[in-house]
Amino acid sequence: MIGVGINGYGTIGRRVAYGVSVQDDMYVSGIVKNTPDYVAIEASKYFNIFVPSEEKIEQFKKSGIKVKGTVEDLCKDSDIIVDGTPEGMGENNLSMYKKYNIRAILEGGEKHSSVDGSFNAYSNFDEMKNKRYVRVVSCNTTALARSLFPVLENYGISSVNATILRRATDPNDSKKGPINAIEPTMQYPSHHAPDLKTVIPNINIKTIAVKIPTTLMHVHIIDAKIPENVNMDDIQKIWNEYNRLLLINSNEGFKSTAQIMDMARERSRNRSDLYEIAIWKDSVNINNGILHYLQAVHQESDVIPENIDAIRSMFNIADKEESIKKTDDSLKIKGGEF
Amino acid sequence: MIGVGINGYGTIGRRVAYGVSVQDDMYVSGIVKNTPDYVAIEASKYFNIFVPSEEKIEQFKKSGIKVKGTVEDLCKDSDIIVDGTPEGMGENNLSMYKKYNIRAILEGGEKHSSVDGSFNAYSNFDEMKNKRYVRVVSCNTTALARSLFPVLENYGISSVNATILRRATDPNDSKKGPINAIEPTMQYPSHHAPDLKTVIPNINIKTIAVKIPTTLMHVHIIDAKIPENVNMDDIQKIWNEYNRLLLINSNEGFKSTAQIMDMARERSRNRSDLYEIAIWKDSVNINNGILHYLQAVHQESDVIPENIDAIRSMFNIADKEESIKKTDDSLKIKGGEF
Repeated sequence: MIGVGINGYGTIGRRVAYGVSVQDDMYVSGIVKNTPDYVAIEASKYFNIFVPSEEKIEQFKKSGIKVKGTVEDLCKDSDIIVDGTPEGMGENNLSMYKKYNIRAILEGGEKHSSVDGSFNAYSNFDEMKNKRYVRVVSCNTTALARSLFPVLENYGISSVNATILRRATDPNDSKKGPINAIEPTMQYPSHHAPDLKTVIPNINIKTIAVKIPTTLMHVHIIDAKIPENVNMDDIQKIWNEYNRLLLINSNEGFKSTAQIMDMARERSRNRSDLYEIAIWKDSVNINNGILHYLQAVHQESDVIPENIDAIRSMFNIADKEESIKKTDDSLKIKGGEF
Repeated sequence: MIGVGINGYGTIGRRVAYGVSVQDDMYVSGIVKNTPDYVAIEASKYFNIFVPSEEKIEQFKKSGIKVKGTVEDLCKDSDIIVDGTPEGMGENNLSMYKKYNIRAILEGGEKHSSVDGSFNAYSNFDEMKNKRYVRVVSCNTTALARSLFPVLENYGISSVNATILRRATDPNDSKKGPINAIEPTMQYPSHHAPDLKTVIPNINIKTIAVKIPTTLMHVHIIDAKIPENVNMDDIQKIWNEYNRLLLINSNEGFKSTAQIMDMARERSRNRSDLYEIAIWKDSVNINNGILHYLQAVHQESDVIPENIDAIRSMFNIADKEESIKKTDDSLKIKGGEF
């Protein structure tokens, strides 16, 4: 059993903790929480609580939360740390993980150059085997990899243009915006294009990113240049074989991201999450060799299965298909046609 | 076992269906769905599906959903119908329920005058015993009853002023607004004041309602005139005794409705719902005999326990305390201090 410590219990950290807790070959050795708020109080019902520094222990005690130690104590209790601390902090934490001679996973906000490699389960599970410091790419990059890799691998793609409509902030946040503006990123391509190349090196892609006032999901508008002889049936057949893609139809009631997330609530998933990338089947068309489609991405949860698989790859305790199947079964991930 | 049919599987209907399904003295005989969308597809995994009319059967079949019959067939299979159809339709359906000689519960959008009485578990459980047609008051009215009744009953209230900040629409809706406007209701008092009197006749209340651009919760700003000798401890003590009130503190991280609903997700409730009314403890103060407080209301789910209790009251199969306890235990409702 691999002991997994979670440093940072935010949007990603708390979901990785849940994901690990339902596996049979790993367990949560503890989680690090920075503030003794309602999230810490809830977490303390299920997990050992650690804090970033000695000074915090008293603050947590006052809130009635039992603390097992500091993040350094958690390092001693763990075989690997999944670092879900705010952007940029993960890289700084690497020296601590190295000091305690344990492995670590960083999330998509950290730099590719700071680790041994970046991870996506479909595109490079095998290449991350036995690596000690691995980064799971961001929610948007993971989503691009999920739907593009199968097409690239099976038919080839000569170039991709993708527009990424990004949610403004997560649902539990009431500070950030925009709440009434559309905020394009001037950088072209946006950072998502080079980020995708860290897990699919041979992809030729340009991305544009625009922030919009919603909290629910990201939406991607994708155009991929494919060989002239590939048709719609070929594409749908191959997507159907990848369980982390869910093919939905707008006439089943999926008019917007609101209904997609409502469906996840109906399925009684943990935290009403949707791990699969939802591709609107009726948006898919092929014209003059351009494959066009729309997909929706649950930014809070789509990278959770990748974090679990990355752990198995790094410890080399399961091969690619076996790990993906274990993860999908335990999280009730069920792609294919809705 | 009481057979409960659910006519209308929208925001309330689907949650009542879940609530009934976890009781040991009633079961879901079937649900009526109007369109064969993703909600119907998910529901068909758990419940018998009925449709509003013969013509719909073919449409559902085409979508691969097995239909057991029409709403009239469901009436034959049921001891009571909970009517969650759109506002105004429930009243029209009463003649059908009477024709089949079965009981029915209408929801808060229907008129009080159309039924034998209106229901709130705390304020008038006993008065609805053996009634055949009962209305569960709306989410806002239920919330007002929950926090005001304990104070009225134990200490007395001479008058109440309440401002109701209403969410624009539910999270699964992408049609309605406002999305960038504040829309006050001109009517004063708003319909909530007379509605509350249907379950607490002797309350003297004025309400104002304003619609705001959010989907998560309603927030109530309440001022209640109480006897001069009642203090803060008295109020908190009595609220602590009523399990459907949850006392939260902004310094536990509950800065807004965003964090309150996030807490519900952390608690792994069905559909990430919050059945309790959340009262901000640090908003409570008493000045010159005016009790002032803020409360947040999860509009999708707070009336669900009342629907369950209303069924037990109408069939007179449990007394008030027993029914409330059964409902609270089965739905994991846990009030008091967070």
